[in-house]
Amino acid sequence: MAGTLRVATIGAVGHINYVVDGLKADPTCMFVAAARHEAGERLEPVLNSDAARRDQPKVYDDYRQMLDEVKPDIACVCMKYYRNAEGCIAAAEHGCHILCEKPIATELPDLLKLRETVQRTGVRLTGMFSYRFNGHFRAARKAVAAGLIGQPVLAFGQKSYKFGIRPDLYKDRRQYGGTIPWVAIHAIDFVRFVTGLEYTSVTARHANKAHPDYPGLEDCGALLFGLSNGGQAVITFDYLRPSHAETHGDDRLRVAGTEGVLEVRPADDLCQAITHKQAMVELQHNGDVDLFGDFVKELRGQGKHLITPDEPFRLTEIALKAREAADTGRTIALC
Amino acid sequence: MAGTLRVATIGAVGHINYVVDGLKADPTCMFVAAARHEAGERLEPVLNSDAARRDQPKVYDDYRQMLDEVKPDIACVCMKYYRNAEGCIAAAEHGCHILCEKPIATELPDLLKLRETVQRTGVRLTGMFSYRFNGHFRAARKAVAAGLIGQPVLAFGQKSYKFGIRPDLYKDRRQYGGTIPWVAIHAIDFVRFVTGLEYTSVTARHANKAHPDYPGLEDCGALLFGLSNGGQAVITFDYLRPSHAETHGDDRLRVAGTEGVLEVRPADDLCQAITHKQAMVELQHNGDVDLFGDFVKELRGQGKHLITPDEPFRLTEIALKAREAADTGRTIALC
Repeated sequence: MAGTLRVATIGAVGHINYVVDGLKADPTCMFVAAARHEAGERLEPVLNSDAARRDQPKVYDDYRQMLDEVKPDIACVCMKYYRNAEGCIAAAEHGCHILCEKPIATELPDLLKLRETVQRTGVRLTGMFSYRFNGHFRAARKAVAAGLIGQPVLAFGQKSYKFGIRPDLYKDRRQYGGTIPWVAIHAIDFVRFVTGLEYTSVTARHANKAHPDYPGLEDCGALLFGLSNGGQAVITFDYLRPSHAETHGDDRLRVAGTEGVLEVRPADDLCQAITHKQAMVELQHNGDVDLFGDFVKELRGQGKHLITPDEPFRLTEIALKAREAADTGRTIALC
Repeated sequence: MAGTLRVATIGAVGHINYVVDGLKADPTCMFVAAARHEAGERLEPVLNSDAARRDQPKVYDDYRQMLDEVKPDIACVCMKYYRNAEGCIAAAEHGCHILCEKPIATELPDLLKLRETVQRTGVRLTGMFSYRFNGHFRAARKAVAAGLIGQPVLAFGQKSYKFGIRPDLYKDRRQYGGTIPWVAIHAIDFVRFVTGLEYTSVTARHANKAHPDYPGLEDCGALLFGLSNGGQAVITFDYLRPSHAETHGDDRLRVAGTEGVLEVRPADDLCQAITHKQAMVELQHNGDVDLFGDFVKELRGQGKHLITPDEPFRLTEIALKAREAADTGRTIALC
């Protein structure tokens, strides 16, 4: 794609800041329209941005009308999570490339329908799998791929968030989708991204133990995966991080390999390994990559986006099957 | 029990040092006999001890003959792991109280037979579940019991060991028993000990990925437990810690509760919590407790041993069922 890319937003839920910050940083993109995805939606996070002040996007109450009239090159979908697939399907049918909040669907049939639509229409879809854009995790992936710890065989991923103040969306499991697709999905992504291994099966458990006013939200849980090389991965997730902790999230990754052990803890700026050859290796990194900008680069033919075309679908599929495993107590095959 | 306690050892495998160090520290105990548990067993770890030099125990080639002739008050069983149950049963039939290496059995039928024998003979049996004698883990248990982190709902336990140099015992899964009963059992113990919760189910995976010469040894694995309050626990274990790491083990525990999060990492002398009330609480502890001495105290009527009469059986049962879960891929109920 050449020339100015015309970008529109649909909804303002979740990490819409990735879009407006990316737009601000990229003068080759124009923010042409901002659509509400439901009546009365407040668009301040979008309209109060520098990008909106610069480009004066047209505001729509009906996102389908916006797609019909504006036909943006890129549609950025940040709807209530259970409607993201609906928004993406509409955008794909209008020939838009898509940047969507994760999960890109909250039910498997929606995901399958979205995948079919994207394949048929030939648009490119990416998701807000932001951890692989973090310098620490990219450095870890690079080190593992270079063989620093030998063959990775045992991974532990942790996602721990402050609960903070959450809108009613999080009270309704049907609308929210659950904490595995919303939070644990990041660890599902970074374990897979860093190890380079595929998941083969999942067993999971989750519960709401500390937030009775949010019955649709699981505030603790754990996942056990088989890995494609015969190793294992576990992930824990919770909304139990005390409010005055230094950072919102306490994300951790440990990967044990046949030649060493690697650890990443961005909150502590920690990214290091111990190997059979070296007592301690500090992994250097070059900072974070902008997700939006990286996506636009690929659309312009200037490189490969860090998220392959299939990965938003695969990661969401894993998360939804992991949620099913937790709901049912069953172990579910993943390939 | 009053007067001098007459103590004998059977075998010198595993943590026999707990016995000889305990004997050295307790002049009310006399080391009366040291028996081999198989022909040609080298007893240097026992006979070169200060306690042996002090008490000059009689050496036996046949441990059953020793039990017949010596009738010790306490028999300390450190046989090849698959024979520990056999040694304990013989000791119980001779009316000896028993301190046994963990696991106290490597097969469930042996465990059941041992439990029946101990109940029928009325002897007291304890196992080398050493982590609950560690000051850090005791401080953590005390803090959780006092409500520091509210209701504990999500636990993560890690056992990571250097492989080092291991005898042939570890090559044969039947004799060794597996890494879940040998290594992960400590985390099974400390998660349960610190949280005060019981396990309700287990799913597990394990593999040998880095030690082809030790086909009977799993060098990596992970366990997923349901907890009795509806929470979850995961445990990872591995023999992948590089040899020049500062400590043999990298043991970790994190417990997230409804009012805070607690962490223990003895290798880093770390034992702390963040709670909704306090940004950081350093948990003070009074050092480690001697396992042998604590057991002897209870036998003398001077207090309760840190391991209740049922716990060696329960912990071994959990470990063996977790191993079965890993071997079969099935989720197994634990209560």
